[in-house]
Amino acid sequence: MSVLVLYAGSAEQWGPYRPALTRAFEAEGLDVELVTEVEDPATVDYIVHSPSGPIRDFTPYTGAKAVLSLWAGVEEIVGNATLTQPLVRMVDAGLTEGMVEWVTGHVLRHHLGMDDHILNQDGTWRPVAPPLARQRRVALLGLGALGSAVGQALAALNFQVTGWSRSAHEVPGLQCLSGDEGLEATLKGADFVILLLPLTPQTIDVMNARTMALPTRGAVILNPGRGPLIDDAALLKALEDGQIGHATLDVFRTEPLPPEHPFWAHPKVTVTPHIASETRPVTAALAIAANIRRSEDGEPMMHVVDRARGY
Amino acid sequence: MSVLVLYAGSAEQWGPYRPALTRAFEAEGLDVELVTEVEDPATVDYIVHSPSGPIRDFTPYTGAKAVLSLWAGVEEIVGNATLTQPLVRMVDAGLTEGMVEWVTGHVLRHHLGMDDHILNQDGTWRPVAPPLARQRRVALLGLGALGSAVGQALAALNFQVTGWSRSAHEVPGLQCLSGDEGLEATLKGADFVILLLPLTPQTIDVMNARTMALPTRGAVILNPGRGPLIDDAALLKALEDGQIGHATLDVFRTEPLPPEHPFWAHPKVTVTPHIASETRPVTAALAIAANIRRSEDGEPMMHVVDRARGY
Repeated sequence: MSVLVLYAGSAEQWGPYRPALTRAFEAEGLDVELVTEVEDPATVDYIVHSPSGPIRDFTPYTGAKAVLSLWAGVEEIVGNATLTQPLVRMVDAGLTEGMVEWVTGHVLRHHLGMDDHILNQDGTWRPVAPPLARQRRVALLGLGALGSAVGQALAALNFQVTGWSRSAHEVPGLQCLSGDEGLEATLKGADFVILLLPLTPQTIDVMNARTMALPTRGAVILNPGRGPLIDDAALLKALEDGQIGHATLDVFRTEPLPPEHPFWAHPKVTVTPHIASETRPVTAALAIAANIRRSEDGEPMMHVVDRARGY
Repeated sequence: MSVLVLYAGSAEQWGPYRPALTRAFEAEGLDVELVTEVEDPATVDYIVHSPSGPIRDFTPYTGAKAVLSLWAGVEEIVGNATLTQPLVRMVDAGLTEGMVEWVTGHVLRHHLGMDDHILNQDGTWRPVAPPLARQRRVALLGLGALGSAVGQALAALNFQVTGWSRSAHEVPGLQCLSGDEGLEATLKGADFVILLLPLTPQTIDVMNARTMALPTRGAVILNPGRGPLIDDAALLKALEDGQIGHATLDVFRTEPLPPEHPFWAHPKVTVTPHIASETRPVTAALAIAANIRRSEDGEPMMHVVDRARGY
């Protein structure tokens, strides 16, 4: 008997997702009917979903065994009261790799003082070598799949990485702290602060006037996680008075970031347009197919969202 | 009986080297007299040397058991006909780490298209994610201590690294080629070319008009190795016609690079002032002390230069 999968992602992405999903279902040995519309919503077995797709009300999908998100972040859907089916977030190898590359590159940019060489090629030879990574302290907030991979990549380059999460996590190779006291110890004296926390009521504005005073003076903040993890007004003030030396931001409270927003023109802010990590259709389709195969075989699905925690 | 070690590095570096060497000799349990001048050169047991130090003629040092270079590159001394003692080049953990950090950072800068975000913050949201590292081909010329470490760091980030050396080398995790045919296969289709070869009569101008035509159009060349590995005129031409997209250069035929040199003002060239890798006194002193201890105990020294090969 065939499985009915409804693609409810963005219309623009149907082009790459259709062949990627079709091939991935075949590779898992699944007999799937993949559609973008159904006459009777109750017949749908699985929903492949993104907030940029058409579904806001999950009520009619009475037979759906799971909603599989195409996005790693699920805060736009987890609070939807009509969603009673299990919600699975995307953990995609390509997404993790892209994140590791973005964070490692932007940390090294600041670590090496690269901007001096990109922006100030004035013919003056100033042979001052940067410190070694082993002399730099990195505070990594968030130890999920992305945070753990980022922490291990930076530790492999000899950065002194301390990881923090709200509840205790262990990541091989990293010093890991948790709770409110752990947050203070993690941030204190850090040269780099990297934000990869999920967005929950507890993590909003985690970087605020009080916490931004803890890193070493001139520290660099990188936010490839979620925009509201930072209190923007407090950040602008900390940049102005020099407590924070630079912020490289990939995510914002409003996206696209409006052209008149002060971050764009700020000499101590680098804006990247939510590209740190993007779900790649080919690898994402493999993750979705693997989960549907598990569900059909009666195995537990991977990466099911805990509604109480919000991620 | 005490060992007489003559420091013949640069006068400016004596400040940091004196305490670093003293502590390192103590840690190895060596009884060393460390001096910067001697009455009778024949009494010197070991010479700690750099080309920026005072010794040009090694003839009077008839009792010296080895010359220990403070520099990783030995081309300025290896051809010195008065040097008959074993020559040891510097392999310093700090030097390797600094090199890995410089290369990884500058590769990621170009891989991520970071300059767009550093230089063109015009308020326009252009959400185009870069390819993944797994889609980029890196040609790494030189598989010594530095090249191997760089290759493994880039492979850990999923870059497709092919390493090349004149004689066959194996480096775990890397595809390794050698010889003239291997060079062509290594360069062909590469997105990045990294030069970490020693400078020998065989490696001068290894990147010339012919070899620069082999990488993919718009490839990036990084040279943290030795200036004369590149034919500068051929590079300027390849940059002009677009075959090479960018060159990030840390070493030059003349250093400091003269202010009037076209590399400084070239929009497709980034100059860094020979900082990719610098010997750090603390870690370099440990390497020197360990080698003298080995020699005194009758063990073979590490990293003795093969004069026939020139490195």
